[in-house]
Parts: sequence; structure tokens; C-alpha cells
Amino acid sequence: MLLRLRKALPPEQLQAVLEVARELGYAPRFLDERHELLQLDGVGRPDHRSRFEDLVGVAAVLDVGGAHELHERAGRPDTVVTVGEARFGGGYVSLIAGPCAVESGPRLLEIAREVQKLGATLLRGGAWKPRTSPYSFQGLKEDGLEHLRRVRAETGIGIVTEVLDPRDVATVGAVTDMFQIGARSMHNTPLLVEVGRYGKPVLLKRSFSGTVRELLLAAEFVLAQGNDQVVLCERGVRSFDSSTRNLLDVGAVAHLKRATHLPVIVDPSHAAGRSDLVRPLARAGIAAGADGLIVEVHPDPSEVHSDGSQAVLPATFGEIVADTRVIAGLDRRRVVGPSLSHAER
Amino acid sequence: MLLRLRKALPPEQLQAVLEVARELGYAPRFLDERHELLQLDGVGRPDHRSRFEDLVGVAAVLDVGGAHELHERAGRPDTVVTVGEARFGGGYVSLIAGPCAVESGPRLLEIAREVQKLGATLLRGGAWKPRTSPYSFQGLKEDGLEHLRRVRAETGIGIVTEVLDPRDVATVGAVTDMFQIGARSMHNTPLLVEVGRYGKPVLLKRSFSGTVRELLLAAEFVLAQGNDQVVLCERGVRSFDSSTRNLLDVGAVAHLKRATHLPVIVDPSHAAGRSDLVRPLARAGIAAGADGLIVEVHPDPSEVHSDGSQAVLPATFGEIVADTRVIAGLDRRRVVGPSLSHAER
Amino acid sequence: MLLRLRKALPPEQLQAVLEVARELGYAPRFLDERHELLQLDGVGRPDHRSRFEDLVGVAAVLDVGGAHELHERAGRPDTVVTVGEARFGGGYVSLIAGPCAVESGPRLLEIAREVQKLGATLLRGGAWKPRTSPYSFQGLKEDGLEHLRRVRAETGIGIVTEVLDPRDVATVGAVTDMFQIGARSMHNTPLLVEVGRYGKPVLLKRSFSGTVRELLLAAEFVLAQGNDQVVLCERGVRSFDSSTRNLLDVGAVAHLKRATHLPVIVDPSHAAGRSDLVRPLARAGIAAGADGLIVEVHPDPSEVHSDGSQAVLPATFGEIVADTRVIAGLDRRRVVGPSLSHAER
Amino acid sequence: MLLRLRKALPPEQLQAVLEVARELGYAPRFLDERHELLQLDGVGRPDHRSRFEDLVGVAAVLDVGGAHELHERAGRPDTVVTVGEARFGGGYVSLIAGPCAVESGPRLLEIAREVQKLGATLLRGGAWKPRTSPYSFQGLKEDGLEHLRRVRAETGIGIVTEVLDPRDVATVGAVTDMFQIGARSMHNTPLLVEVGRYGKPVLLKRSFSGTVRELLLAAEFVLAQGNDQVVLCERGVRSFDSSTRNLLDVGAVAHLKRATHLPVIVDPSHAAGRSDLVRPLARAGIAAGADGLIVEVHPDPSEVHSDGSQAVLPATFGEIVADTRVIAGLDRRRVVGPSLSHAER
Repeated sequence: MLLRLRKALPPEQLQAVLEVARELGYAPRFLDERHELLQLDGVGRPDHRSRFEDLVGVAAVLDVGGAHELHERAGRPDTVVTVGEARFGGGYVSLIAGPCAVESGPRLLEIAREVQKLGATLLRGGAWKPRTSPYSFQGLKEDGLEHLRRVRAETGIGIVTEVLDPRDVATVGAVTDMFQIGARSMHNTPLLVEVGRYGKPVLLKRSFSGTVRELLLAAEFVLAQGNDQVVLCERGVRSFDSSTRNLLDVGAVAHLKRATHLPVIVDPSHAAGRSDLVRPLARAGIAAGADGLIVEVHPDPSEVHSDGSQAVLPATFGEIVADTRVIAGLDRRRVVGPSLSHAER
Repeated sequence: MLLRLRKALPPEQLQAVLEVARELGYAPRFLDERHELLQLDGVGRPDHRSRFEDLVGVAAVLDVGGAHELHERAGRPDTVVTVGEARFGGGYVSLIAGPCAVESGPRLLEIAREVQKLGATLLRGGAWKPRTSPYSFQGLKEDGLEHLRRVRAETGIGIVTEVLDPRDVATVGAVTDMFQIGARSMHNTPLLVEVGRYGKPVLLKRSFSGTVRELLLAAEFVLAQGNDQVVLCERGVRSFDSSTRNLLDVGAVAHLKRATHLPVIVDPSHAAGRSDLVRPLARAGIAAGADGLIVEVHPDPSEVHSDGSQAVLPATFGEIVADTRVIAGLDRRRVVGPSLSHAER
Repeated sequence: MLLRLRKALPPEQLQAVLEVARELGYAPRFLDERHELLQLDGVGRPDHRSRFEDLVGVAAVLDVGGAHELHERAGRPDTVVTVGEARFGGGYVSLIAGPCAVESGPRLLEIAREVQKLGATLLRGGAWKPRTSPYSFQGLKEDGLEHLRRVRAETGIGIVTEVLDPRDVATVGAVTDMFQIGARSMHNTPLLVEVGRYGKPVLLKRSFSGTVRELLLAAEFVLAQGNDQVVLCERGVRSFDSSTRNLLDVGAVAHLKRATHLPVIVDPSHAAGRSDLVRPLARAGIAAGADGLIVEVHPDPSEVHSDGSQAVLPATFGEIVADTRVIAGLDRRRVVGPSLSHAER
Repeated sequence: MLLRLRKALPPEQLQAVLEVARELGYAPRFLDERHELLQLDGVGRPDHRSRFEDLVGVAAVLDVGGAHELHERAGRPDTVVTVGEARFGGGYVSLIAGPCAVESGPRLLEIAREVQKLGATLLRGGAWKPRTSPYSFQGLKEDGLEHLRRVRAETGIGIVTEVLDPRDVATVGAVTDMFQIGARSMHNTPLLVEVGRYGKPVLLKRSFSGTVRELLLAAEFVLAQGNDQVVLCERGVRSFDSSTRNLLDVGAVAHLKRATHLPVIVDPSHAAGRSDLVRPLARAGIAAGADGLIVEVHPDPSEVHSDGSQAVLPATFGEIVADTRVIAGLDRRRVVGPSLSHAER
């Protein structure tokens, strides 16, 4: 490991750094006369980088040596995350589709059948909805979960639904196939620890202005519980321009594919915030290297209680699936299709 | 209320808007031929604005009429939030000071006595620390809380400490005088509801890129539980420049004093991220109209486990208190000093 | 046109609005009792929207009616911009490639021949380089221009080069086939007017934090001189994250294709700031609907004086051309290839 | 100087770095085995940092040694910039006030007299206005300049006015006492060079999303011409929130006072974008350490052609002057008042 210390460090801070280094088993030696560059020889562990970054005297960790965090690529092949029929990473691309919120059982079933037929292998749908205002629709909660359970029983499609509160992890986990951690919860570390412990796959969305490193360290909270089934999701970041609701960071997608072995998908619906831009953003996400998409689909956007203006019709979702096959094909990646045993019955 | 509907709205979406309007007791009428401007005559309630914003057909609420949300100024005088000897708002300015994290009992007591003597009426100190990395120091937790309890018993100074998890609200609430909701938790609505119900005062920090409206609606989650003892805190937002850690938004402070009756304070320490800029940012916050400050103070920054480079020495805190008296005096506002009965014993 | 006036407007400001409206030939009428919504019946002109936005009393222009600015889509088909063999828009996709700066004649000729063979129809290369520091390499200036002139004479490839100063427009215009207005110059209106008057095609880059509307109004400065040969270029905007140099705004590309009839291209090199991410960002740009790309290509990045770490090798550019053909083919768009008469000699 | 090189640098890039180092008179030596840390012993010059940053192989300049750029504090006392009676820096605070644009001679004279009486030592007023739309009012140009010339002759107040085009520098310079370089022109290096050569003082505004380093290097373009009379101006940066037009970066003000010997002032009017927030932002700027203010003042905001909603009345400007005296007094800084010989006549 190679540390850059702050300039003109007081002796007691310098000692503090050296002590921690020795405690962790490193042999420290300075590279320069001003004692600003400290080389640590020895074997690193995933938690060492943060241990040094915590120290007041450390300006930057210039090189982690072998102290790789669990999410780091560091030469590892892709982790393939498997949820029901869906597979993310390792050359597999999967599509998640469904309504923003679960609003009625029959409607949910209809949407599930449509998107499954068109190529989705997972159904999204919020039972608990994180909302900016306390007076907005907050989801059907347990009733919504029950609708999801039934739809899965009838269609066989896997379920992705959001959990907002660590106290609900067991309840949601009993039904869902994959936990969604929304953008507003990326920094909610008690929740991350709880879903990490529960052990089911996790879809982790980047927060409104989360850096790529913060997203990776949020994933690290899950990974550190022994759960490596984490899919990262880029959903647009906050910016100064209002032509789209959020700014889809395709560069982050491309960078993440190099920086981590975890799969990365894109949410073009929340990035666009308007249905007419969902298809081009879906294409751009796959083109940048995303291992999948999560798309809001609704046959009648006029009845939706939240975010309706960004849902696309099933026909548009079908076009997105077709686009995805072509673009993923550029790298010989394969779009996972549903085995239609259930749906065709 | 005055709504701007989306252009060329399908008839069923238009009907949906009209139905909700009538259900809520309004008489709707269109102002224009294209049916894009809908005037709703009638008596509003705090939750009505969000109800309309939820509808797909509504592009914007141009005027809320009487449907004021609970946080809105709407002609109301300042809400004064009282915590121990501290008072925020209504012409009262109070100072919160202390270490970033609680790290040892004797050190905490020493700091409490120093900052109390210098003019702080509340002691800050984290027992649970929200951290970006799972490997960083996460706080002493229950032990830290116990240190805080003892220091209050010995000095009489009020306590502000962060709660991260809704499951910890009762535990933390049994000790603290005021809950801190950190920037990473501003969007954590289950936590906001829980502290709102508990009933003690809440210090609510703006998230890294939270809009002013999102901050006010986060406060609304607390207010809607019947708890109006909320102090808002501006602590800098994320930007593209690295000369300070965050960009202190003094314009938001000035705007908030006009938009809401709730008090607003400033955290110059997390905004600056470096101790040499804390004093000028503290001054700027008070000058913009803040009703108080929360400042990280530590007599020996070299021993700190987190954020040490932004703590100021007690002497600097003393200068900040003196500056605050002068600047608050421009508006005949009064800096609340501690009654020194405990401290002087 | 439909205006929203500021609330509680003083009578003299209201009169000012009504007078301007009547002078411009509109019949104004209020839609509401509070006199905040003003409908203007009559025939609009491109300059009317800004005329009203200039007035203190006008909060927003809600609807422009027929007062379309020259850049607006407003039902118009794509403007096709033609530069030598390149065509942008109307189903044509063209690729621009070359070094960041012109550094030597033989090297420029070598690069021009390579990229032309691979599918570029225009050669980029800066003779004047806009730099952040006065001590950085500022380009070969007139000598660089002379190299560009010779390379065009030898290869027949069209030239795109930047102009920074209105005093240089005639000099640069005598050689270049297309003016590049860099991100730092998007707000340089004297320069925009000068290139607009000169009459050659213009490649207009979005500034570091330019809004989409500002970009379109910068184009309007050129269009208003009677020159409609403007290609817009998205090159990434400034953000809080450092994993890429700029954040490529593919949503802006998709939005621009709907909002304007002008072609839009993407610069993946300046967005990425690192060569390994250029190809995925190039793909994402085309997938979002871009009508072309401008890519930095250099056979030996180690000799480059500026921005060398983002240049790709010719082989990578060849892959980008192949990707572009497949992705553009999704919409039956055609990648313009060079007629090889010159190059094959 | 201490350089961090890119990892795994190809030998020819490494050679390129070593050669440049030797050419500039340094003795290079590596500090580590991986050859990533290169120490250069020798005497630096202001342009050396950029020379190394230009090289592909250099990841970062970790320490500049003695190669200080001209703007750097590096232990130098404040540069005092003197314009007529105004003085900025070195303990002097001066106030600039006036209309956004020059619109009529009599009005300008009236405003000049009022603000001079209240404490302004310089009059601002745009003759050329940089505007986003080609159809907005672009200023009275030469006629505006003539009004400024006459008002100075009658009142003796110094003039600050913007120059947009390098071709106008001589014309504007013949009248103005100080050139204003607006936010849109911060990156306009030909213009910076031209005003640097002309030799009169320069007021340089930070661009919409300019980093602090970019602002300092824009100043360096002027300083490198031998003109050290540069005042920096923080006027708010672009952000994601709309409660103010721009986000006033008081942290940048505090940082700049430490990083450079040049004076720094604040423009609270363009930051706020609304008149009711100008006074609190003016206070905050001075409190953060600014050496002055530039404030839009107009006795009748309803007649203004651009940005009228942010102008304050003369009475409010008088309050700002009084606030400034108190806050600047905290550091024993002195607000320069006009010698009233002219104004009292």
C-alpha cells in the first residue's frame, strides 16, 4: 500500500499512522525526505484501505497494493447474479419490467404476462414506495406484496420489489426473489446490512448524487455480510439541466464494468422521467455495457398514481427487447429469455 | 389552487384530475380554451398539493391557494424550537458544539465543559456514525450513548446525537435531547416518521444533493406526526469543485427563512471539510440569517477517528461565538448563552 | 403565446408587458382574475419569446404559440448539414476523427490517411487550442492551419478545426471546411455571430455546464445570421464524480433530436477523458440517436502535448466505425463512408 | 517539484518526462521502485507546473516546489488593486454598485449620485450585455459607453464595465477605469490576453461552473501579461436547486483568500437572482472574507430590460453598506468611502 500523508504532519499524527500500519502487519518506510510518501510492505486485507483513510494524517491512498475491497475487479471474472431465470453478468443480459407501484392484482397479472411474453425474466413493482411528500401515495404495502406473491405463483416470473425499512426485510424477503434498494436508500447502511444478512440477491440503485465509489462501498456493506449477489443500477444523477429528470451516467456504467466484477444494469425510466426518451436511453445503457435493464411498463399510463409519465407501453418494451438483442450481440452477449413453461400454460 | 395540466391530455386523464378535485371538495373550472389551466375554487388542506402532483395529467401546481403544507411560512411567525437551554428561531440563535464522534468518556466531558464555558448550549457527538465504508469506524453505539448520558448529568448541557435506524429511536430517545437526522438519512422516511412520533426535537440535515423542497418535505414527514420541533440544517451540497468538501448554500439559508417558519442552522464543519475554513463559513451562515450553528470542536484533532481535519480547537470556537454575537446583533437577534449553574460548580 | 406573470405585479410593470405585447401585434387578454395568466392572440416571430422573457414582469412563457425560434423542431424535418463528403442528420451519420492538436505535418497526414481509410469523412485537429493554463501548449496556430490545408489537398478529406477569436475567423475560414466552436466558447456570442456571417458549417459544442436551452440559443446566434448549417455536439458536462472526466449526457442527445431539426453528434473522447472508455461512450451516443461522432485518434498517444490519455488507436476507431454501422442500422440510418478516390491513389 | 506518473508507463513516455525535466533544469530522481514518484530537484518557474501537466505520462503534480504560478499566495502579502478611489485587498473593502445595463443617461447619472452618496466608490453598468438569446437586449454599446463617460465626468465616480470582444478592448479601455470580464467570458483567453496587455485593472468573474483552479488560471492569463491588477469575483455557480439562480460559493471566497494574493469580491445580485435575497448574500460574502461587493441597484426595477428582478433599491444598498462596515470591522478591515468632493458639489 502507498499512502500520501498530509503536509507538515505533527509528530503525534505521524506516529498514529505508523502504529496502525504496524498493527495491521505492514512494514512502513518513507520514500521521501519530507515524510509525505509512506510505502507499506506486506499483505493487505479488504478493510485496510478504509482503516488508513480514517486517519487524520492520511491525505490519500495512492495504491492499495493487495488490500482489495470485495467489490474490486482486481483480475476477477464477472460475478453472475442469478434470480429465477434471470442472469446478470458474465455475458448474460436480463430485462426487468413492470409497473412503478403495485396498484391492483388483476392489472399486475396482466402486465406480468405481457412483459414475460415480450422477454422480461423479472417483474418489478413497488409495494412500499419511497416518496418525497408524506401526502403522496406510499404504496399498498402488505397488500401489494400479496399481489406480487400471487402473480409469481401464476406466471412463474421472478419478483423484484423495494424494501425501505430494515424492520420489513423479513416480510419482504418471504415473497421477493430480489430486494431492491432504491436511490434514496443507498446510504441507509442498517438496511444494507440487513438485506446482506438475509442472503437473497440485491438490486442496488445509485443515489441521486452518489459517486461511483460511494455506490461500490454501499455494495461492500452487502458483500461484507457474505452475500455476493449484488447487481448495481445506474438510474441517472441529479444535474443542472431539466430536459431529462436525471442525467443517465453511461460513463459510470462503462467504468464500473472495469472497476468491479459485479453486474451493472440501467434504469432508463427514472433517468428520462418521460416515456418518449426511455427507448433511446435503454439502448444507450446496453451500448455502454450494461448487463440488463429495469423498465417501467404500463398498458394505461393514465391510471398510474406515481411517475406515470415515464412508463412505456408494452409495445415499446418489445422494441427495447429487440434493440437490446442487437446491441448486446456486438459483444456476443446473450439476452436471457424466459422459459415459457408457466406463461404458455 | 391553480393547476397547469399537460398539453393535449387524453380525456381519461383529464377526467381523473377533475374527479380528484371534486372528491377533495373543489369546484374546478378551466381558464383557457386548450384546457391546460385549471382553477380549483375551495378550501385547501396541507396534503392537497401532493395529491394533485401525484396525478399523471398535472404538469405543475402554479398556486397552492390555501392548501399550505405544514412547513410553509404562509404568514406564520417563526416557530421557536427549544432544547434544554437552547432556543432556535424567533430571534434566538444557539450554538451546538462537540466532537464528530464520541470516542472516550473523559475526553467528551472535557470538550463539553470547554464548549459550554465558551457559549455552546448543546453538545453534539455521534454514538452511531454513518460511514461510506463498512470498514470505517462506525461509532461506539450504546457505549457512546452512555458517555453522553453521563456528561449531561455532570454538566447539564443538552445532547444532540444522530439516530440512523428506526429500531434505535427509543434507545437513543431515552438519552438524547434532540435527534439528529444526518444528510444520508434525509430521504429515510421510516426514520423520519419514527422520530416524529417519538416527539423530541429533531435536527434535520439537508442531503448531499437534496433540493430545498425535498428538505422541506422531509421536515413535513416529521410535522405530519404532530411534532413541530424541527430545526433544518444546511451543511453544504455536492459540487464539481474540490476546494471545499461541500458547497455551503447560504442562499438556501436566506430563502428558507422566507419560505418556512421553522428555524435553520448551518454546519460549517462538514461544508468546509478543513478546519481553516470553518470560522469564515460559520460567519457567512449567521450573516445569511441562520438561527444557529453546529460546529465540530476537538482539543486534539490528531486523535480523531473520523473527519478530524475539520474539527476546530476550542479557542477558534470561542472566536466563532464572538463573531456570531456581532453578526446576529445586526438584526437584534440574541445568542443564547448557557446558564452556568452546572458548569460553574 | 401564453405568459405567466409574476404574482402581485405593480401596475407599471403590468402596463409594460401589455405595451410590448401590443407593439408586437398581439391582442392580450387575461385568463384569470389575479391577472397572472396572459394570453396573447396573434402571429408570433422567432424573436418574440426572448422579448417577453426580457421583461421584469414575466415569470415564464408557458406556450410560445407560433413564435418558434429558428432552431425549434416545430414539425420541421431534419436539417441535413453537408461538409465535403460528410452528411449529418436526415438519416445520415458521419464520423469525424483526428488528433487533438495538429503537432506535425507528416504525422497529421498519416493520421488523416488512416482514419479516412477506416471510415472518417472529416479530419479534426486543433491549430489554436483553448487551454486552462497560459503555460500549456496553445497550438501551432497559422502553421497548424497550413498543415491542415496540405493534408486536405493530398487526401481530399474535409477539415474541422477550432476558432477561438473573432479576429481569426477569416484566416481559419480560408482553410477549414467547418468551424469548431469549443465548449469554452459556447457563450462567446461575438464569435458565434462572426462564424454565422462567414457562412461555412459550424460544429457547436455544449459548454461545461450549459443547459440544453443555452446550447440551442447559442445555435440561434448562428442561425439568426442566415446560416443554418449548424451541428450540435454533446461532449459531457461537469459533475461531482471523477470516474470520467465529464458526464456524457445521452438524455440530452435524445431530447435534442426531438426539440430541434439540427443534427447532433457526440464527442466520446472529451467525455471519457481516458481512452479505454471511448468506445463504449461512442456506442452509447449513437444508440441514443446521435447523427455522428467526433473521436480523438492518434497512433502514438505518448507523443501528444495535450489530452493524450484520451486518444484511441486507429484500430479502436475501426471498431467504433463497425459498432456505429450496426447501431445506426437499428433505425435504418446510414453511416456515410468516404469515396476513396483520393485515398486510394 | 514532485510528480506522480501514471502507472505502468511505457518507456518512451517516461523518457519524455525525464527529458522535459532536464531541459527545464531539474535533476530528476525516482522515489520508488515502480517509478511512479518522480522528485525534481532544482529551481522552479511559474510556467513549469503546466508544462508537466501537459505531459501524457504525468498523473498529478503533487508538490510544485518553487514553481509557483503568479497568482499563488506562496507567502506574499495581499495585492491591493486600486481603481480611482476604490481599493480592494490588504484590509480595504470597496463597494461597486449600479444598474445591470446602461439604459439612459439621466437615469445612470441619478443612480451614480445615489450609490456614490451611500458609499459606492465604483459604478457598474453594462454597455455590451452578454445574453443567452440573440433576441434579448444586447446593450446600448457605444452609446452606453458615452453615458458612462459623461457620468464619470460629472460625478468623479470610477467606472466598471464589461468587455465581450477582444476587438472592443481599446474602445472600452478609453472610457472605463476597470474592465469587467463576465462569467461567460472567463474561458475566453484571447480576451483575457488583450485586457492583460491593455494594462487597466480587471474584474474577473468566475464562470457558471468554473473550478477555483480554472478561475485562478484565467487570472494567470492576465498576470502573465505583466498586469497584476486583477480582482476575482465569485458570483454563484450552477446547481441542481432553483431556490436561488446560482449557488453563492462562500467557501471558495474563504479558500481564495488563502490560495492567492489577489483580492476577491462577491456579486450577491447574480447569485440570488431575486432582490429579497441580495442583502443576506452580500452579508455572507463579506463575512466569508470578501474584499468587496458588486451590487445591482436601481430605483425603479420595473423599467429594467434585463435581470430587473434582482436589482435592489438604493435604500437597501445603504443597508448593505452599513452591514458591510460592521462585518468587515470584525477583522479591522476598512470599507473605503468616496471622497465626496465631486458628489457634494
